[in-house]
Parts: sequence; structure tokens; C-alpha cells
Amino acid sequence: MEFDLPTGIAVLERTPATLRAMLAGLPPAWTDATEGLETWSPFDNVGHLIHGERTDWIPRARIILAEGAERRFTPYDRFAHFRESTGKTLGMLLDELASLRAENLATLRGWRLTDAQLALTGEHPALGTVTLRQLLATWVAHDLGHIAQVARVMAKQYREAVGPWREYLPVLDR
Amino acid sequence: MEFDLPTGIAVLERTPATLRAMLAGLPPAWTDATEGLETWSPFDNVGHLIHGERTDWIPRARIILAEGAERRFTPYDRFAHFRESTGKTLGMLLDELASLRAENLATLRGWRLTDAQLALTGEHPALGTVTLRQLLATWVAHDLGHIAQVARVMAKQYREAVGPWREYLPVLDR
Repeated sequence: MEFDLPTGIAVLERTPATLRAMLAGLPPAWTDATEGLETWSPFDNVGHLIHGERTDWIPRARIILAEGAERRFTPYDRFAHFRESTGKTLGMLLDELASLRAENLATLRGWRLTDAQLALTGEHPALGTVTLRQLLATWVAHDLGHIAQVARVMAKQYREAVGPWREYLPVLDR
Repeated sequence: MEFDLPTGIAVLERTPATLRAMLAGLPPAWTDATEGLETWSPFDNVGHLIHGERTDWIPRARIILAEGAERRFTPYDRFAHFRESTGKTLGMLLDELASLRAENLATLRGWRLTDAQLALTGEHPALGTVTLRQLLATWVAHDLGHIAQVARVMAKQYREAVGPWREYLPVLDR
């Protein structure tokens, strides 16, 4: 499937409500659970998505759209959210994600991007030249990857509890 | 994590709203997308969950709780939903899932199951002896597995569109 704005935005605008429906009010036994040492809980995943709203997608799109001499992206800090989420509740993070996402989608829609603009490029610090269209498609796929991760992390908490059904549930050993 | 009723039910009661937040109103390009031949779309996943509400979890729990001579479960038809979903819209399926789940959770809560009852057993046609506790834990993990699957199927539609970011998004090749 090719990326286009309305289809991509349809997913982006649903992510905060999806995570809220999944996680708001759940006991910490679920929301703080991980897949083991140095892996992320549902709480951590939401914090990571917030950090992306602040520093990744729209800021990188701005770099591309500026068409300046310097189109290199600032490296993304995959661990900043541990610091930024400290002292916050999951409810606060879910609210923050919803409001940042709404703001960012208003910005994106306001740009009324043309095909020519979607073909403009930036320089990813590790991956090299990328287009704005690829950046926006990645924003969508990244959301979906983290929704899948949250569900998987939670499912794994019952890896033993399901007994012999484990062999029918590949998500428990992924 | 051990299975207990309030913690397990906290997930089960959120699944219909989670899938609604993710999928309601999305273009068919997303909701009918699959991972290739003989794999399931988001629409198929919702249909499959509905079939489980009708024929799997609560009916099997009833067999166990009856403590009869015959505790063998009816084999579960993993493909019945293709027939049952024919002619329905995704919106109809989301409504159906929500109402069946609410009914089934009312039944489950109404039973006020004791630890002794959770330890009762049934006979799975392929897996052998299983406890009610394992059945209920599987209901939860199965929901989460299908939420993860829906997100993964959708993400994969952008496998090419993300360009070089593909190597950072393991969900695209899972």
C-alpha cells in the first residue's frame, strides 16, 4: 500500500484513543509489566510515543520542508522518555499523548502537502536519505508497532497461566 | 503473573472498546488488509473473536462447571467466522462483539467463582486436561494476541512505504 495523507492520518488520529481504551484504569500489574530486563512496559511505550511527538515526526518533517542546506535530523533518543515520564501517572501520559498528537495532526493537515513536497528529502543520521513520504509512513507503522508491543507485553504475563494453551498462542513466545 | 478474576476481567472488558477505537470508521484499505493468502484481516480478527464469545470461552467454562461425566470440549472451529461474518459491516461486528462480551462477563461475574471451582478441569480435544483457571487466562491472552495481530497486519501494509526505516520496525517482518 502506498502512503497517502488521509489514509495515514486515519491511523494516527486513532492511536491515543486506542491506547486509552486498552490501558486507562488497568491495574499496574498490567501497565508496569515488561518482557524482562531492559524491555518496555505499556507505560514506557506511551512515554516513548510522547517523546516522538515532541522530537521526532513533526520536527523532522519541518527540517525536510525547510529545504535548507542542512537537512540532517537530530538523532532520536530512544531512552529520553524514562527521564521525562518520571513522577507521572499513566493517565497523565495518555492525556499528554492525546493533546500532542492532536496538535501535530493539526500542523500536518495545515501544511496541505503536495506530492512534490512529500518527495522532498532529509538525511537520517544512520539510514541516509529519506523522503517526507517515508517519514510519515514510518510515523504510522511505528504507532502500530507499539500498539502490538503493548498487547504482546501484556499477553506474556499469562505465559504460564494459560497452561497447555501456550502452544496455540504464538504471541506468548514472540 | 498468576491468573485472578479481577485482573483478567480488567483486560477482557476493555477489548471491544480497544478494537472500536482502533478500527471503527477506518477505510477498508486498512480493515480488509491481510498479511497475504489465507491470513486474516482486522475484520476477520473481530469475526473470530465474536465466534469465540459464542462457542468457546463461556460454553467451555459451563462444561467444566457442570462437573459432569463428559467434560470434553466441542472442538473450536477457527474458520466459522468467515461464514458468520458474511454480509456484515465491521461496525456491526464491533457492536456484536461488545454486546456478547458484556453478556459473557456478566455471566462470569455472576458465577462468583471460588478457587476450588477455578481448579476444576475439562478435556481439551487436543491439549488434554485443562483447568478453568487456564481457560480464563487463555481468553485474556487470546484477546491480546488478536489485538497485536490487528496492529501488525495494519503495520505491514506500509512495509515498502517506510523505505529504509524498515530495519528499525521489526513488526513489519514478524
